[in-house]
Amino acid sequence: MRDVAIIGVGMSPVTAGSGKSLPQLFVEAATEAIEDSGVDKIDSIYVGNMMSGFLQNQEHLGALMVTALGREGVPSFKVEGACASGGVAAHAAVKSVMSGLEDVVLVGAVEKMSGYSTPEVTSGLMMAEDKARVGATGITFVGLNAMIAREYMRKYDTPHELLAQFPVLCHENALNNPKAQFHKNITVEDVLKSPLVADPLRLYDCSAIGDGAAALVLTTVEKAKEFTDLPVKIAASAVATDTLSLYQRQDLTTFEASRRAAQRAYEAAGVKPKEIDLLEVHDAFSILGIMALEDLGFATKGSGTQLVKDGVCARDGPMPTNTFGGLKARGHPVGASGMYQIAELALQLSKKAGKCQVPEAHLGMSQSVGGIGGTAAVHILRSD
Amino acid sequence: MRDVAIIGVGMSPVTAGSGKSLPQLFVEAATEAIEDSGVDKIDSIYVGNMMSGFLQNQEHLGALMVTALGREGVPSFKVEGACASGGVAAHAAVKSVMSGLEDVVLVGAVEKMSGYSTPEVTSGLMMAEDKARVGATGITFVGLNAMIAREYMRKYDTPHELLAQFPVLCHENALNNPKAQFHKNITVEDVLKSPLVADPLRLYDCSAIGDGAAALVLTTVEKAKEFTDLPVKIAASAVATDTLSLYQRQDLTTFEASRRAAQRAYEAAGVKPKEIDLLEVHDAFSILGIMALEDLGFATKGSGTQLVKDGVCARDGPMPTNTFGGLKARGHPVGASGMYQIAELALQLSKKAGKCQVPEAHLGMSQSVGGIGGTAAVHILRSD
Repeated sequence: MRDVAIIGVGMSPVTAGSGKSLPQLFVEAATEAIEDSGVDKIDSIYVGNMMSGFLQNQEHLGALMVTALGREGVPSFKVEGACASGGVAAHAAVKSVMSGLEDVVLVGAVEKMSGYSTPEVTSGLMMAEDKARVGATGITFVGLNAMIAREYMRKYDTPHELLAQFPVLCHENALNNPKAQFHKNITVEDVLKSPLVADPLRLYDCSAIGDGAAALVLTTVEKAKEFTDLPVKIAASAVATDTLSLYQRQDLTTFEASRRAAQRAYEAAGVKPKEIDLLEVHDAFSILGIMALEDLGFATKGSGTQLVKDGVCARDGPMPTNTFGGLKARGHPVGASGMYQIAELALQLSKKAGKCQVPEAHLGMSQSVGGIGGTAAVHILRSD
Repeated sequence: MRDVAIIGVGMSPVTAGSGKSLPQLFVEAATEAIEDSGVDKIDSIYVGNMMSGFLQNQEHLGALMVTALGREGVPSFKVEGACASGGVAAHAAVKSVMSGLEDVVLVGAVEKMSGYSTPEVTSGLMMAEDKARVGATGITFVGLNAMIAREYMRKYDTPHELLAQFPVLCHENALNNPKAQFHKNITVEDVLKSPLVADPLRLYDCSAIGDGAAALVLTTVEKAKEFTDLPVKIAASAVATDTLSLYQRQDLTTFEASRRAAQRAYEAAGVKPKEIDLLEVHDAFSILGIMALEDLGFATKGSGTQLVKDGVCARDGPMPTNTFGGLKARGHPVGASGMYQIAELALQLSKKAGKCQVPEAHLGMSQSVGGIGGTAAVHILRSD
């Protein structure tokens, strides 16, 4: 098997109301990644996206993006895994390099969610659940996550203020990220006093609607040496699934897909959770950030909040988490978020994270969740 | 690089008004393929589809399908390349086996187009073009293909009756395929007298709206020997693109994406066009069937119709073409058609084609086109 490395990273700022089209967003991130890498020839282009068919009534994103990039001819297609589309697209692109068929692959993920009515976007997000059976009940995606939060709080006797630590951490980190959607310090009290969205989730428990794109240039570890002195190796790329719908689960407070993907990733990379020193998790809602810490093996069930409380996830802690602001504060253009995570890990591990830079980290993990835990993509990145 | 083989094939009948849901269609084809292969454990599942976001308002097809199959946990996601989604999904799945990460991969492609109004489906199909710029003019997908047909007929002084040979051939072949959408012999005169859809294209020049799914089980050539005495080797799997939109092309009468993908495929397989003895082409419209013969290297530009006239493409000719009826008569559930093509080649090459069986064929090629030529997927299959 060929080992794969990241040699280029690009991302657009996340904003609501960018006024940019899907191809404009994609080209912005892709161009930055290509320039960052220094490569000229691209063998194929993968496009991660969730909602273009519904919101933009546009498919065929492969040909759309190669045309927008002026790279007609290059093989290209779209990969979709709901809110994990970015992570899943990265996985498919990694396999492409591993296959030996292609040496240099551009993979970008893009989502444009602003410019549509809230009912439209809310309905679009429910495409990640069983639209015909669960969507038909009228429940929203936030509502499903609220059920998880409620059950977690009951089962583990966890007060809301402990969950609320997570968005506070993310907002603090995002202050250093010029491309983050929000640059605003918040407190636990702010979270608890923010407007109720779906009980118990309040506004500051929830990521927002945004537009964005992130991209990577991948090649073999061998070839990477031609382009950079500090390549970031992809030590593991794993995807796993679970039942599509929440009602089909035994336990609402864990995502089996995350556990399975993490297990595969740890095995592939030959590392243990305690070795991870940098983390990006899918905190679309505060509860999911906490659950991720547990599902990825960093804390036992019900004790995830303790990690945040103890400063393990802090920027100067042993495992800085969501150092660019996470889904909550960097932003969550759904199909793109999984790619932002990997891009941010790569910037950290190659010492290009600017003001977000953490001092010492060599083994980073990202976790991207699709739907209400139906899919998870986990990557482990390593630098020397 | 690991060599990949097909060890299982399944497909649902193509019908308009199946009454079946997307997962029902997918499970039907996937179950048949898994049973045909004899495998028990599946390492990952790829899902090809174009229109689910728009027509069913459903994404996250990976988790949807693993749940429907009762195989939660298995990595799975959707691959989209407009009308070439099936071919592109097969390409991604082939790379997965080649990567060494997975040994046994199920890849299925599915589309449900019936049960919606004609304007809905017509609008959905335009997602394969630039919806914002070209779709906004009001032109339909048939209209774009009519422009190609008109230009081809002018440039190469080709009368409609020569193009009309193609659907006649397909309808004849479909008579032997119990899973074909149409079982009806037609004549060139029938084509020329059928209702005008978009001048010069008439009803029998055009494929119809249909529901369907097809699936393959892939593994390494090495491992295939455990399951079958007659594995079908995937000698080449190639994808290429062109500009997304017809207005961006120099020449309307050729699809550069097809030429590029075919060139890659011939190189990868180490074969020349004259060696191909079985063919499946993307005849969504009669003109596209003829153009494919030229773009794939079997005829010079403007002379594709001669091949049909001379009987080269006939079932008892040297290169039987669309032996199960092609898009025109087997049916064209858009995102699934590329998978039907490969499945049908595999059945022929493993001598399981039933009444459609051609006597002697060892090297089959399939060509699937996305949009108005923005993407093409070409596969070459070989049996001993």
